[in-house]
Amino acid sequence: MRDMAVSIQINPAIAGIPYGDRRKIMGLAEGKKGLVDLMSGNPYVEMPAFIRERIKERVDSGPMRYTNYWGLPELRERLSAKLRAECGIEADPEEEILITHGVQEALYTVMRTILKPGDEVLIPTPHYANYLLNTVACGAEPVFMPLHEENSFVPEIPLLERAITSKTRVLIFSNPSNPLGVTWTDETIKGIAEFAQAHDLLVVVDEIYREYASPKPPLSIGSLPGMKERTFTFQGFSKTYFMMGMRVGYVVGPAVAISHVKQLHYIILLCPSALAQHAALAALDCPRAQVEPLLQGFREKLKLLYEGVAGIPGVSCVRPNGAFYLFPNVRCFGMSSLDLSKKLIEEAGVMTLPGTEFGPEGEGYLRLSVVSSREQVEEGLKRLIKFAEDNL
Amino acid sequence: MRDMAVSIQINPAIAGIPYGDRRKIMGLAEGKKGLVDLMSGNPYVEMPAFIRERIKERVDSGPMRYTNYWGLPELRERLSAKLRAECGIEADPEEEILITHGVQEALYTVMRTILKPGDEVLIPTPHYANYLLNTVACGAEPVFMPLHEENSFVPEIPLLERAITSKTRVLIFSNPSNPLGVTWTDETIKGIAEFAQAHDLLVVVDEIYREYASPKPPLSIGSLPGMKERTFTFQGFSKTYFMMGMRVGYVVGPAVAISHVKQLHYIILLCPSALAQHAALAALDCPRAQVEPLLQGFREKLKLLYEGVAGIPGVSCVRPNGAFYLFPNVRCFGMSSLDLSKKLIEEAGVMTLPGTEFGPEGEGYLRLSVVSSREQVEEGLKRLIKFAEDNL
Repeated sequence: MRDMAVSIQINPAIAGIPYGDRRKIMGLAEGKKGLVDLMSGNPYVEMPAFIRERIKERVDSGPMRYTNYWGLPELRERLSAKLRAECGIEADPEEEILITHGVQEALYTVMRTILKPGDEVLIPTPHYANYLLNTVACGAEPVFMPLHEENSFVPEIPLLERAITSKTRVLIFSNPSNPLGVTWTDETIKGIAEFAQAHDLLVVVDEIYREYASPKPPLSIGSLPGMKERTFTFQGFSKTYFMMGMRVGYVVGPAVAISHVKQLHYIILLCPSALAQHAALAALDCPRAQVEPLLQGFREKLKLLYEGVAGIPGVSCVRPNGAFYLFPNVRCFGMSSLDLSKKLIEEAGVMTLPGTEFGPEGEGYLRLSVVSSREQVEEGLKRLIKFAEDNL
Repeated sequence: MRDMAVSIQINPAIAGIPYGDRRKIMGLAEGKKGLVDLMSGNPYVEMPAFIRERIKERVDSGPMRYTNYWGLPELRERLSAKLRAECGIEADPEEEILITHGVQEALYTVMRTILKPGDEVLIPTPHYANYLLNTVACGAEPVFMPLHEENSFVPEIPLLERAITSKTRVLIFSNPSNPLGVTWTDETIKGIAEFAQAHDLLVVVDEIYREYASPKPPLSIGSLPGMKERTFTFQGFSKTYFMMGMRVGYVVGPAVAISHVKQLHYIILLCPSALAQHAALAALDCPRAQVEPLLQGFREKLKLLYEGVAGIPGVSCVRPNGAFYLFPNVRCFGMSSLDLSKKLIEEAGVMTLPGTEFGPEGEGYLRLSVVSSREQVEEGLKRLIKFAEDNL
């Protein structure tokens, strides 16, 4: 009975990482048949054939050894050129670019490197849940800056100013935004850059959805004068090339910090997946004709869902122009987002995420996605409209 | 000139992670032609054809979506059965098994979850360098317990007893040992289990090389009475199936801790590579006839290298019976391990690792590996013997 006495002390920073609403919804949906998935960020789309062929060729072309810890040098060089050409970001492939296990790993390793317990992290909210989870895991303090629907979820600099304290170290956001589906304009990004410089903040920006923005990808804040030295930019292959499960992305940042991020990355991963890195090289060579129609299909599904949802009496919704999400205001249903999301599974057969998955400011909203096929999105919309007719 | 003022504060725990001797050696070797690699742990061997075929089939069989965060349920169930059958370890596939990005990620996420700043970690040494790196990254304190060549690198329990303080929380080791190439006997493992229970320690054991042990795999400490509740066992596919670059392994541990390890794992990875997990399923189905000859080849290369190196006058070496490493005593050359390792690159064209890569107790030793082809290992041995003739 000696073993009954084992008590394992968990590091408080790790024990404190919250579990979100997502798992409640996933638990409720488990085993239910015929649900329409308007919930996940995990597209039901195959990788382009070009990339699949190159992966298979690589499998048969020799040992699958550990790669360079920081990622294949050729991949880092190609990305350096791409960043310069497409984003105006200058990044040395040896010192300032690290290949990661998706944006997820980039987020963790960067935040853990640049944050100390007690530091404050400014998070425009509703926000991608992991910005908060990582802040907590670092023992740092989140400071939320609400984004308002009536302002199209654009940040208000005076509100940011008011949130600043002597402990504020980092501002983190995604552009285009997950979960809000909006892309901030060049002017907004320039305003944020001035704000960051005025308060000597580091900026962590997640641009994983940049190719979903319309009519054009957003301005990269890391390309602005004086910003390279204080900006960590995350991009990846998961969303643009439907390589979610391959797990490969990258971070660009100041060499002085990346040298430490690299060492943390090494002790966590050793190296990113070799095959995923070869798939990333293939993605850079992939004919746009194999990618653009897929992205266009997502834009069309998003427009369709937006028009249908915004047309429901009582529901309001900021028009999306980035990512593959909508964030409609559903207060008219007169219940919490979590209850509504549960009821939609039970009674309408539609999976959605309560806005509260993205922070308390998400109360009264749902996040809807268009990762499912056009037919499924149409079916989901039909069910939402019917549910509204029955419940409003 | 505003940007000149940016000073990025690095988290001291991360800034403190040391860089080892390995990179000095790799830097020195870079660009040199015709070197024999007796240094790395990165075999020049292809994955078995069976696994390669299954990977290619998976690439063409549908979207490559994010998987279950903790790993494919089928893979966890298969591993639970395998652990019971082969290691005598009982592990619930839902609560006690987590699929990781190799043993490397398992090591980080477990240590970061169960260690707090100031905790002490008992490390029999010479040790795999990352046990120290992770200890430092957690703000914990390493306490080294020297293993002695004259005792065949078997731990001496009285020495372990003497190292215990009120802060000792964890004992970590690999069995078979990287870098020592030895496998501890069942009696030794039982002695360590008693010691761990007597002092209420958690045990972290890295069994990545278990299939390289001869004549049989080692006793898993997690299978002993009273140990399941305090043991984290790491195993993987990288070494047995030559899936190094695929990046997939797993950890088994007490549910009460694994529930937190899972959440840290989620914020770092989202999920392990989907394709790597399918490769792992394939590995579990792989005909032994495609694996055993490869392992046997390594045992033969190791015997060959051992006999040659041990035959060099003045050099002594514990006979290896696990992993694919030798750890010869090379004090007879009258210089530091690092200098000897450098000289071997410059003058003999052989890459080795200084024993100091594995802690200060490794001074006077080299780690040699047999990851290269038989021809290359033979050539490397010939060069070592010639070098010894010229320098002793």
